[in-house]
This record gives sequence, C-alpha cells and structure tokens, in this order.
Amino acid sequence: MTKEDIQKEIHRTAAMVKEKNPMAPSITNTVTINFVANAQLAVGGAAAMVYLPDEGENMARLGDAFYINVGTMFPVYAETLPRTAKVLHEEKKPWVLDPVAIGIGALRDNLLFQFRAFPPSILRGNASEILAVAKLWGLSQENAGTGVRGVDSTDAVEAARDAAIGIARYTGGAVAVSGPTDLVTDGQFLAYSKGGSHFLSKITGAGCSLGGVMAIYATQSTAFCAALTGVAAYNLAGKRAEEKADGPGSFQTHFLDELYLATPEEIAGHPFDLERI
Amino acid sequence: MTKEDIQKEIHRTAAMVKEKNPMAPSITNTVTINFVANAQLAVGGAAAMVYLPDEGENMARLGDAFYINVGTMFPVYAETLPRTAKVLHEEKKPWVLDPVAIGIGALRDNLLFQFRAFPPSILRGNASEILAVAKLWGLSQENAGTGVRGVDSTDAVEAARDAAIGIARYTGGAVAVSGPTDLVTDGQFLAYSKGGSHFLSKITGAGCSLGGVMAIYATQSTAFCAALTGVAAYNLAGKRAEEKADGPGSFQTHFLDELYLATPEEIAGHPFDLERI
Amino acid sequence: MTKEDIQKEIHRTAAMVKEKNPMAPSITNTVTINFVANAQLAVGGAAAMVYLPDEGENMARLGDAFYINVGTMFPVYAETLPRTAKVLHEEKKPWVLDPVAIGIGALRDNLLFQFRAFPPSILRGNASEILAVAKLWGLSQENAGTGVRGVDSTDAVEAARDAAIGIARYTGGAVAVSGPTDLVTDGQFLAYSKGGSHFLSKITGAGCSLGGVMAIYATQSTAFCAALTGVAAYNLAGKRAEEKADGPGSFQTHFLDELYLATPEEIAGHPFDLERI
Repeated sequence: MTKEDIQKEIHRTAAMVKEKNPMAPSITNTVTINFVANAQLAVGGAAAMVYLPDEGENMARLGDAFYINVGTMFPVYAETLPRTAKVLHEEKKPWVLDPVAIGIGALRDNLLFQFRAFPPSILRGNASEILAVAKLWGLSQENAGTGVRGVDSTDAVEAARDAAIGIARYTGGAVAVSGPTDLVTDGQFLAYSKGGSHFLSKITGAGCSLGGVMAIYATQSTAFCAALTGVAAYNLAGKRAEEKADGPGSFQTHFLDELYLATPEEIAGHPFDLERI
Repeated sequence: MTKEDIQKEIHRTAAMVKEKNPMAPSITNTVTINFVANAQLAVGGAAAMVYLPDEGENMARLGDAFYINVGTMFPVYAETLPRTAKVLHEEKKPWVLDPVAIGIGALRDNLLFQFRAFPPSILRGNASEILAVAKLWGLSQENAGTGVRGVDSTDAVEAARDAAIGIARYTGGAVAVSGPTDLVTDGQFLAYSKGGSHFLSKITGAGCSLGGVMAIYATQSTAFCAALTGVAAYNLAGKRAEEKADGPGSFQTHFLDELYLATPEEIAGHPFDLERI
Repeated sequence: MTKEDIQKEIHRTAAMVKEKNPMAPSITNTVTINFVANAQLAVGGAAAMVYLPDEGENMARLGDAFYINVGTMFPVYAETLPRTAKVLHEEKKPWVLDPVAIGIGALRDNLLFQFRAFPPSILRGNASEILAVAKLWGLSQENAGTGVRGVDSTDAVEAARDAAIGIARYTGGAVAVSGPTDLVTDGQFLAYSKGGSHFLSKITGAGCSLGGVMAIYATQSTAFCAALTGVAAYNLAGKRAEEKADGPGSFQTHFLDELYLATPEEIAGHPFDLERI
C-alpha cells in the first residue's frame, strides 16, 4: 500500500459516498446529535438515530455501517449497546466507537469494556481516551511492538501512538487519534494529517461528528481509509472555514458548507504523512 | 371552498400566529428538537418540550395545539404518548403526528397503532411513511375512492396520494406528504405546493420542524389550512434561503431568517394547485 | 462593595475564565443542550453533559462548578438530581439552577422542592419562574424586607424583585431574573443590566445558555459577580449580534461569535445600575 494507493482510495471513497448516499445509523449523545447528522448529510450520507434495544439491532441490520458514541448515557443503553454491538459483529457491519468521557461512570465503563468482545472497526477519540481504552481492554503498549515513547505535552496525540497501534492490531481495524496533528493507524501504517482549525475545539461536537462521518465513509472502504478520508475532509473543511469565520458561530456554519463543497479530488489531495511501522 | 378562500385563510392563519404567539408543546426527537423549537419561534409561535407522562398530559391541556414526533423513542414513551394523545382527544386539541421511521421497532409501531383510536388532526410524513401508516391502521386505499395509480418514481409523493386521502377521511383531519412537490389533503381537496430547496434534504429536521410549525398554525385554523400554511411558508423560505446559501450550513441559517421574515401576504401568495377529489 | 469594585471583579472573572478554561458540567434539557455547550466554550470554559446518577456525582466532584436545568425531565432524574445536588453541597461547589417550566409536573416540582435543602449558588429564571420558586420554597416576600410592589406588566422582572431578594438571602448566593432589563441580586445589592436583543426571545435557549455561562463564571468569582458577568456578556453580545442579524438564524450565529469576541474590558464596561437594598 503506497501513499498513492491510499490517495486513490480516499478519492474513490468520498466519491462513492456522494453517489450512493449510504446510511450509517447512530446511537449518540444528545449534545451534538444534530451536528453528527448534519455532518453525515453534508458529506453525502444519510443519518438515523435510535436509543431502544430492538431499534439498535434493527438499524444495525438496515444500515451500511454504524456509529456509537457514549457521550450522554441513558439507562436503556445497558441493554441497547451490547445488543447492537453483537448484531454489528454477527453481520460484519463496520462501525465506529467514540469512547467519550471514559472513566466517569460505572455503566459507561462496563459497556466500553464489553465492546472488547465485539470491537469496532474504527475507534476514534482524543489521546487520553485512546490510552484509557487500551488500559480498559488490557492491551499493554508492548503489543504495539514499538515501546513507550516520551509524552510530549505539545503533541498529546503522539503519546497515544503505541496504544493506538496496539488497539488496531487487536481489533483488526483502525484507530484515529484526534489532536493538532491527527493520527490514523491500522497497526501496520501510520498516517498523520494536519490542517483543521483552532475553532474545532471551540465548538462542541467536532470529534463526535467526525466519528459519524467516518462511519459514512466506512460503508465504502477499509477502516483505515475510511478514518483517513474523514480526517482529511475535516482538516480541509476546517482550514477553509476558519478563513471565513469571525468566531465559533460562523465557523460552524462555514464548516458544514465546506464539508459539503469539498470534492473527492480535494479531500484526496489534502496532505498527509505516511509511515510504515 | 375556493382557492381564494384558502389563500385568505392562509393569510389570516399566519397573521394570527404572529399576533397571538400561540404555544404548541412537543414530544419530539433529540436530533432536531432545537430546530423544531426555533422554527416554531420563527413563525411567531412558542415551544415547550417534555418527555414524562404527566407532563405530556399537562402540556396537552395547557397548549393550544401539540406536536408528536416519534423519531428517537425513549422507554417512557410507552406511557407518555398514549396518555398525551388521550388528553388531546378529550380536550379536542389539534395535534400533528410525525410517524418518523415507522417500522423499525416494536414500541414505535405499537404506539403508532394506538394513535388509530385517538388520531391526529394532521399526519405529516414522506410518502413511504404515509403509506406505512395507512397499512398499519388497516385503511385500504379503496377508502379513498380513487383506485390505485401507478407509482411514479420521480414523484413518490403521488404514490401516497390515495393513502393520504384515505387517512384524512378516517381522521377527519388533514394529511401532508412531503416531497419535491408537497401534497396536502383533507379527503375532499388536494393541494399541491412546490418550491423549497434541494438543501431541505441536505439538513436534518426540515420535515420535523415543518410538523412543529404546522402545529403552531393549527392553533388558528383547520387542519387542512394549517398544514398548507406550513407547507407554503417552508417552500417560500426554502426557495429564498437557497438563493443566499453556499451550502447546508448557511442554508439552515438563512432558512430560519426567511421563515421569520416571511409575511402573511407572501405566505398566502405562494402558489399552489387545488384539486377537488 | 462599590460599582468600581464590581467592574474590576467582572473583568477579573472574564479574564480568568479565558485563561484557565474551567469546566462546568451540566444536567440540562435536550432542546438547548448544544447551545449551552457552545456558549460555555465561547466564553472560554469547558462543557460536559451527563444524565446518570453516579455520573452526576462524579462530574460534581470533577467540575469547577455545575449547571442544572430541568427543562426536559427524564425518569432517571429522580435519582440523578438529588444525588448530584448533595455532592455539590458537600463539596461546596458553586452551581446554577434553572427552574424551567416549574409547575408543569410532579417529579419536576418534587425535585425543585428538594433543592431547598441543597440550594444553588445562583438561581436563574424569568420573573414567573423566580416567583414560583419563592412560593415552592415557602419564602414569603416579606423576607426581602421591602414589601410587595405593584406588578408592572411592562417590566415583569421588577415583579420578581422581592422574591429574588428573599431567595438570595435564603441561599446565601445570588438570583438572576431575566427580562428586558435583567436583575441580579445577592440579597444586599441589586444590579440592573440592559442591552441584549429582542432576538434573544426569538431563539430557543438564550436563558439556558446564560445559566450555563454563569456556571462557568462561578468557577472564578462570587455568585453575584458571576451572575452579573454572564448577564453583561449576554447583553453586550446580544446587542452587537442584533446589529448584524437579518433574522433569528443569523442572530444566533453572530451571537456566538460576539460572545467569543467580547473582551474582559468590554464585558466589565457594559453599563449596569447598582442599588443597595
């Protein structure tokens, strides 16, 4: 897999989504649920959100991929999330997990632990969330075969590099770590993507909606390329939106516009660095 | 009822809402709940959202009309929705039902079936949702007295024409079918309204918020005229917003502005075709 | 405490928030939850929303302050709200209560009554909500020591003046009454702030998000100054946003921009009237 192969695949993925309008249903938090749906629509996909156990199962069957974000837990999730993940596993549907706020509650952590047995195709989070999942799932960083690096406080993403590699090797999918520089790995390759905007951390839901968009792209490609397509689209649209924005309000408006306007060529052309592990 | 009568009534309805600021409380999905409230406010109404059984009942009594949208079901809806619908029925309050995603879960379909006994004044949905409600409620299309037409894939709305007529005759209210051309019927008249924007399907919640707006208008007019006033306002505001929009983000911003700015004259002047069945 | 002292403290509060990025978690309604989070981020704070009992407790411990808004009640709140308020009380964490729609349901009123024993640092609402809380908590207006004034229908805020004073004296914190002129009191001083925009009542969530922002400011100052800093920031940003807005959609976009752009100097310089009781 060369860099050029990956660029072609990103182009194909973004183009296929615009052509096919694939649906990736979600179980996601109430804070950013509207932004997740609008971002999924902006890139060319379709959205559907549910909470109940049988609806999670049914949508796991009906959708082309799925997005689970544990941001705001409801009691019914105790039943909904394991049943949905089981169906996704049985049906071999790609899905994205966003382990928001791992560690702040018993049900949340219990459910995130259960996902170890039915792991997501793509795990997306910030560095500390990825490190916490690796710990929760008992994946020591030695699994990554690279040893532990020093934590650079100016680049927290790099601190989660080995945990991300270890998780990707365990799941057989991809892990995306969000930060000033975004990292995507499938356990064999590491891609680093820059761009975006400081405003992405001044609005709520940039990460959540990126997870939802990755699920849309995962309907058409491998976990690694789907995650990288999402990251590239976000870094491109974020950069462009910042140039037009006066503040976080207008940034979000422009961001959805730019996400919609970004062509497959432009998304595939957004620069990234590739490293073989 | 002539076309001119209807136009006068649309004008009166839109004007009265701006004057009286009537409240139509909602039980609606978490994805688009903010958009529903903001659209209701934009046309001159007031919003209030609840989930609990006694609060559904109390708001059914306090409100001038009501909006129920089953997009994201919570377990408590098993109790809340039937109790709320029963009060709406007893108090003869107009209400709008949006049967989002009918067919994807047991509780959802069970509750939608129960509404057969306490039917909404206005049923709003896309063609497939309207067809599914007609089937769920056992209303064969023969009820419409018009026979079955061929389904035109370029105009799915027309495919739901007879189901819409049948439901309207059963409920004694109106049915609105959303699509490229919108259809509104009370079982005797059919109104077709065009306009809007392709962006209305590139943002989440156009249909939901239209349902909420119809509930606001239903506080001042018949089900048929309230539904048509909502459709006209949406087709007008959508068309104007598209002219100013760069993408779906700016479209939604302009759409709320245009919904707010549309005068009763302009809404009543938006063209529609009228057909006696 | 002179007016100049207060202005200096407002400046310090706004500046510290921008410097420290303090977190004020929330349990808040689904209608405006996104706006609450984005407003908290815009002024320089951090947001986190939860629903479950242990997560409410944990976030009460982890956060620097807290925001509770009872707008859309879920059944689990019966357990979550009292347990969270108890921890906030034990940990002496500042928190803001928004008693939205007090009076429309049994659980809502029961929980609002329970807060009497663990009262909020800041109570924020419109005049009728503040009056209803005073009644629910059995705080007669005589507590305010000022007697009852005539209710001026053009200024409903003033009608809640004595109730606000009475509540503030009971809680030892502050009460903020939102209206055309906003009132903030700690039971000893009354501050009146003008500005804002008529559009603040044409969008949903102006009050909710102001409550969330007050919680952010309460991490750095007294209840009285935190509430007044929030009110000043909102009246300033609202005024500026209105000058640029075409309607409620663009108003909300500009409002978040202006909230973000407002400097500590500008917020502290927004005029208010001070009165010693």
